[in-house]
Amino acid sequence: MFQQLGVVGCGLMGGSFALALKRAGLVKRVVGYSKSPSTTERAKRMGVIDVAAESALLAVSGSDIVLIAVPVAATETTFKAIRHLVEPGVLVMDVGSTKRDVVDAARRVLRERIGSFVPAHPIAGKEVSGIQHADAALYNGRQVILTPLAQTAPELVQKATDVWSSIGAQVLKMTPENHDAAFAAVSHLPHLLAFAYFSSVVNQPAGRDFLSLAGPGFRDFTRIAASSPETWRDILVANREEVLKQSQRFRQALDALEHVMREGNADALEGLIRGPSEGRTTWQMGAPRAPGGGKNSSS
Amino acid sequence: MFQQLGVVGCGLMGGSFALALKRAGLVKRVVGYSKSPSTTERAKRMGVIDVAAESALLAVSGSDIVLIAVPVAATETTFKAIRHLVEPGVLVMDVGSTKRDVVDAARRVLRERIGSFVPAHPIAGKEVSGIQHADAALYNGRQVILTPLAQTAPELVQKATDVWSSIGAQVLKMTPENHDAAFAAVSHLPHLLAFAYFSSVVNQPAGRDFLSLAGPGFRDFTRIAASSPETWRDILVANREEVLKQSQRFRQALDALEHVMREGNADALEGLIRGPSEGRTTWQMGAPRAPGGGKNSSS
Repeated sequence: MFQQLGVVGCGLMGGSFALALKRAGLVKRVVGYSKSPSTTERAKRMGVIDVAAESALLAVSGSDIVLIAVPVAATETTFKAIRHLVEPGVLVMDVGSTKRDVVDAARRVLRERIGSFVPAHPIAGKEVSGIQHADAALYNGRQVILTPLAQTAPELVQKATDVWSSIGAQVLKMTPENHDAAFAAVSHLPHLLAFAYFSSVVNQPAGRDFLSLAGPGFRDFTRIAASSPETWRDILVANREEVLKQSQRFRQALDALEHVMREGNADALEGLIRGPSEGRTTWQMGAPRAPGGGKNSSS
Repeated sequence: MFQQLGVVGCGLMGGSFALALKRAGLVKRVVGYSKSPSTTERAKRMGVIDVAAESALLAVSGSDIVLIAVPVAATETTFKAIRHLVEPGVLVMDVGSTKRDVVDAARRVLRERIGSFVPAHPIAGKEVSGIQHADAALYNGRQVILTPLAQTAPELVQKATDVWSSIGAQVLKMTPENHDAAFAAVSHLPHLLAFAYFSSVVNQPAGRDFLSLAGPGFRDFTRIAASSPETWRDILVANREEVLKQSQRFRQALDALEHVMREGNADALEGLIRGPSEGRTTWQMGAPRAPGGGKNSSS
């Protein structure tokens, strides 16, 4: 049980965390701050936070658990604003989709206080954002990645694990580097491709006619193209190195498919499609990695 | 009301059409044929068809409405098998996702009998295939594109329009060329990209670890990668010219995004993301094209 949760950034992620902790009876009081006063006010009116703070520092003051839920690019500024109140024993977490840049910012700003910071990335979200979509069940059944550092206080890593588990999430730990490589592959690149694809369709002469014909496959494939420009600007810049590496791999796979299409080599094309078709058919979200590398190598 | 529906190809599409016509009381009897006798047998056991025919020709014999629901590449062979029974007044349709190749095959094979053929493409489907997934509601609320030719009998175009409308579909008409250009953009290219993307992730050393971390964005983005290799082999070969054109547009959009990422130009990146983000947020499946080209040009 925490005495006070300080939420810096009362959006979808921060608001949902506050609601989840309240519903689970894990916190007595929630103090929230957002850059936009109308957002903080709205969070208070909705009952997501109990007290509207006038600064990030005031949201942290008196809190024994702090969630920084601001756009990734604003993390460093937030650390600067609150660093004087980052005391030993206070659990400070973020929710950023990239971790190396956040950890770098924490090293630069928090310095000897970095032991309180447990970098976190909950694999949850919606294509909508904003406090009005906050949902106490957002993290239920989802994975949360923690990327603790050598200096991170082990008891805070345990507390972080406990609090996410208590609201229904499954907690995994990895290094910031492995995290960023993995999410470049399974999250950041798909967003980049969805943005590129949607743009390419709509920005052609008959684009709007084409869109009126699109069906359920298009709907699902492009759902993430509706994601927040600010959020994804930050993620794609912060993790560009890994994302560009993954894009290179993707282009090679696309080249191979187009090559056999150009040749009219139907058999080779079928062969190239069969792998992803079977792989995606057997894939299940949240399933742990099969020992030995999956169905083709189990024995 | 039809006397007899002949279904050539008792899979998801053919089976669902038969079930829908039966449920709507539009047909007295359904005769079905599939290349695999066990499929035909299964369709009969499931009550999707009333009579199992031993050949495509026998499925057409005595039918006043015929649905050819075979892989696109098998359409020409099917036309050859049934052409002697394609009589004036018999409505013959296909369900292929490409139309120029089907129309070309019809011209070659049906010749003076081509007036009976109304090329059709229902925008419906699932990432699963096979008669076991047949569903009387598959076409309900979906669009069906008809691409009649100058020679097509107008009364059969009307009959085709009526039968699809009666099972809940919205019927649109366009030329085979416009159809193939539009669906290269909104359906065929996304499938190609999804196959390429899923392959590129899984075929890297840590690929299977990465997959265990993937969330709902990945799930939806890759859903169509599970589609049938045979179906998509045929579509991507048949419509390769238009698909490769669309892929070229996509690559240009991807290049532009990567260029500003490499430069670390966050503002330009946000600008490039804002277009698709807003466009996808306002897009609705099945909404007719806004007069004047959408929200930015209405006045």
